[in-house]
Amino acid sequence: MRRVIGLGCIAAAASLSAAGDSSAQSDLIREVRAYRSAHEVEIVRELVEFLKLPNVAADEPAMRRNAAALVELMGRRGIEARLLETPGVPYVFGELRVPGAVRTILFYCHYDGQPVDPERWTGQDPFEPVLRDRALEAGGRTIEFPSQGPFDPEWRVYARSAADDKSPIIALLTALDALAATGARPVANLKFLFEGDEEAGSSHLGQVVREHAKLLAADLVVAADGPRDPSGLPTLYFGARGIITAELTVYGPVRPLHSGHYGNWATNPAMRLAQLLASMKDPATGRVLVKGFYDDVRPLSDFERQALAQAPDDDGAQLSEFGLAAPEAAGRRLELLNQPSLNVRGLRSAWVGDQARTIIPDVAVASLDLRLVKDVRPQTQVERLISHIEGQGYLVVGEEPDLDTRRRHPRLARVVASRGYPAFRTSMDLPMSQALIAAVEGHTGQASVKLPTLGGSVPLYQFTDVLGVPTVGVPIVNHDNNQHSPNENLRLGSFWSGIEILAAAMLLR
Amino acid sequence: MRRVIGLGCIAAAASLSAAGDSSAQSDLIREVRAYRSAHEVEIVRELVEFLKLPNVAADEPAMRRNAAALVELMGRRGIEARLLETPGVPYVFGELRVPGAVRTILFYCHYDGQPVDPERWTGQDPFEPVLRDRALEAGGRTIEFPSQGPFDPEWRVYARSAADDKSPIIALLTALDALAATGARPVANLKFLFEGDEEAGSSHLGQVVREHAKLLAADLVVAADGPRDPSGLPTLYFGARGIITAELTVYGPVRPLHSGHYGNWATNPAMRLAQLLASMKDPATGRVLVKGFYDDVRPLSDFERQALAQAPDDDGAQLSEFGLAAPEAAGRRLELLNQPSLNVRGLRSAWVGDQARTIIPDVAVASLDLRLVKDVRPQTQVERLISHIEGQGYLVVGEEPDLDTRRRHPRLARVVASRGYPAFRTSMDLPMSQALIAAVEGHTGQASVKLPTLGGSVPLYQFTDVLGVPTVGVPIVNHDNNQHSPNENLRLGSFWSGIEILAAAMLLR
Repeated sequence: MRRVIGLGCIAAAASLSAAGDSSAQSDLIREVRAYRSAHEVEIVRELVEFLKLPNVAADEPAMRRNAAALVELMGRRGIEARLLETPGVPYVFGELRVPGAVRTILFYCHYDGQPVDPERWTGQDPFEPVLRDRALEAGGRTIEFPSQGPFDPEWRVYARSAADDKSPIIALLTALDALAATGARPVANLKFLFEGDEEAGSSHLGQVVREHAKLLAADLVVAADGPRDPSGLPTLYFGARGIITAELTVYGPVRPLHSGHYGNWATNPAMRLAQLLASMKDPATGRVLVKGFYDDVRPLSDFERQALAQAPDDDGAQLSEFGLAAPEAAGRRLELLNQPSLNVRGLRSAWVGDQARTIIPDVAVASLDLRLVKDVRPQTQVERLISHIEGQGYLVVGEEPDLDTRRRHPRLARVVASRGYPAFRTSMDLPMSQALIAAVEGHTGQASVKLPTLGGSVPLYQFTDVLGVPTVGVPIVNHDNNQHSPNENLRLGSFWSGIEILAAAMLLR
Repeated sequence: MRRVIGLGCIAAAASLSAAGDSSAQSDLIREVRAYRSAHEVEIVRELVEFLKLPNVAADEPAMRRNAAALVELMGRRGIEARLLETPGVPYVFGELRVPGAVRTILFYCHYDGQPVDPERWTGQDPFEPVLRDRALEAGGRTIEFPSQGPFDPEWRVYARSAADDKSPIIALLTALDALAATGARPVANLKFLFEGDEEAGSSHLGQVVREHAKLLAADLVVAADGPRDPSGLPTLYFGARGIITAELTVYGPVRPLHSGHYGNWATNPAMRLAQLLASMKDPATGRVLVKGFYDDVRPLSDFERQALAQAPDDDGAQLSEFGLAAPEAAGRRLELLNQPSLNVRGLRSAWVGDQARTIIPDVAVASLDLRLVKDVRPQTQVERLISHIEGQGYLVVGEEPDLDTRRRHPRLARVVASRGYPAFRTSMDLPMSQALIAAVEGHTGQASVKLPTLGGSVPLYQFTDVLGVPTVGVPIVNHDNNQHSPNENLRLGSFWSGIEILAAAMLLR
């Protein structure tokens, strides 16, 4: 890393192109591309080996194997990485210092993935990566990982965390390799923080940020998590929704009862749960009917509204892709993501299908997630939900109720909430925000999609609200990656351009 | 079987006792009791061996092992049993002819059981019977099966079909043994028909009844299935609800979507399903809101209403036992069972608990059972349900919808119904009904609970409507037997008195 990139590079790439016209790229990004093109086999191999390590956050020994692999991967790039221990899964931290640097960028990713249900994956184990010649939904078939390039950009790697969030880590490390190969040197110090329990709620991030405030000090946090805009354009999100989850249990008889001998008489908790959930949302407008649900929402600024208006509108294409005839609520998707949500993420009561039994269930459970936007506090939102349930005539308890409680309360529900975390939002007009936009757009030669709020949740408020550092997300993976679901995947073309986008971010001045 | 029982026996027992005063029993039933008391170990051993045979109807080889065991059990009593073949699981038929008999009684039971979920059974395999010193819910502990009697009547045998419906079969066969030991001989020919796919919907019973109409000809069918009244009194049910089941699937996106990136915008099928189910029942009254749901119900006769009024009212005790503060609808349980019902027997959408993922599910499923009463036809009731769903704005399909259908219909549901079968009801004032009441009450010396309608479903309309034979249920097992659920059990005291009740029914004149 010998060459410090001058302003000229950006100036050369100042004519932006939304079509990805390669002539609009900076020379450096052209060199990054050439590097990647010459090393596709090794890059994919490194990714695949990393994906083979099971990474469900609850399995701490498995997570430590991932952390050790990260230390090794970073060591290959001359970064002396270290573990930041927590009471659970450790964080992995490393940095590259640049003599005379006037900026420090902290890159954040997470190396854990969502839990898996291997039976719902198509023809593979979630931790045995598979290459397909296109998306499964488009009829993609398994192909061998080739021993030499080029890889077709439409090929996809299927595995848990292929998109969320291991490939951005490999993209970051590859961007370092590529920049080193070009001889270019970033003008900013680069720090890397990789978290191991983001999907489990990031319960230790606050502690790590406070304990290691000096180590993590930076002028800008860049989070490489989340999906890119469906247009494929470089995407920058300046905020993300927070989240709190709540499990709601409605009680019926202490044991399942024969639906013949007791049906019409014994309370059915599945029907009660349905009635309770139905009371929470207006079916016509999609608006949440919980009192105060939208009270604290901070309105978008003119700047943010304008950025949204300029973002591509792909709602029609997405509806079609998902087999949906209409959205749940009126309005553009990107606008609706700036509102809090109430989502039924799972239902369970007794059995269905071949396993169904003619019984009145003993309990019915709904798992909810509440997404939060700037200024809506997690606990407050759950308290509103509980008040709503109480308003429907329920006694709401926090523990499994005893027999006496069940006998005394005809409507009885239990709500168990996670700790949750709030949304964050960084102003788009801050100098560091503008510098990042300039670096990404300047080097890639493409207009970026700038979102005030990413719909998904990342606990980046710890950086903005605790460390006080502006934080922006730079997601790189394809939007249709089946994140959090079976058959999670990474489109290689998105991975390739993602390496370029992250290299561009590293070149921020 | 040499002695024909004279009218005197019944006359001697004519003073009825609801308290089970043993002095009110007929001499013959006293002898039946003495026989049982002397043979408890053998009787329980025979039951336990029979319960060890897995008997889920879908497993035909297993069911044939059960049928072979039945042929063997009947052979021990000198009944040359035969299999009545169907395209699936066979029926087992046998008879005992009495010279000069002027009546024929056909006893019906089923030898299959509900599917099992072994993980939800407490400390045992459902097909490895366990003896407990009282009900699990009352803290019952496992004890060894003793090698000599007497058995405490509060002891319970836990196993699938311990109550539903293998123990009544053993009780019938034991009643034959006991009557033979007394030297008494029934005045009626006794036929036995044991079905092997009742829990799977009795799809071949109609065929068997038609093909073997002459073989099965009888003056009365006595079905020994279902639970006894909670009072423990002899119970006779003159009808039973029919049933049809329907699985309702509501569609969302073709695959689960990240609830952050799409929540508030992509339709959530779990919420839609909740709204749809909620539209089906009035939460305040428990009345089903499906149009026409109660239209065809045949009202109870004065005779039936009077019998119901005389039945013990145990609703308060049952509410307390089940940990319920109030019933779902106003009215006595035994009255409500004379109305059709709509029961949500299971719900499933994505995942809850530790397995929950922050997604918008792709589908949500509710499994429903609709109980039917006299004159309400299964198909008609399902058509009403479908019309209701259409009235909520849904396109209702029968097959898995294709992508194009999903794209065109914002509200899309699939309903798959079973064939179902109707209710039956035998008039309580028919001569054969009265003769059965006289035999049971006369010999046991107890008032009986006479129900127009058993809440549970048994496909006995095949006997009443196809063969034209009055049909009455004589259930013997404890009401709290966890029928159709994990931890199904038989209280031995109920089994003992059940042997006496069925012996009394065999003595019908």
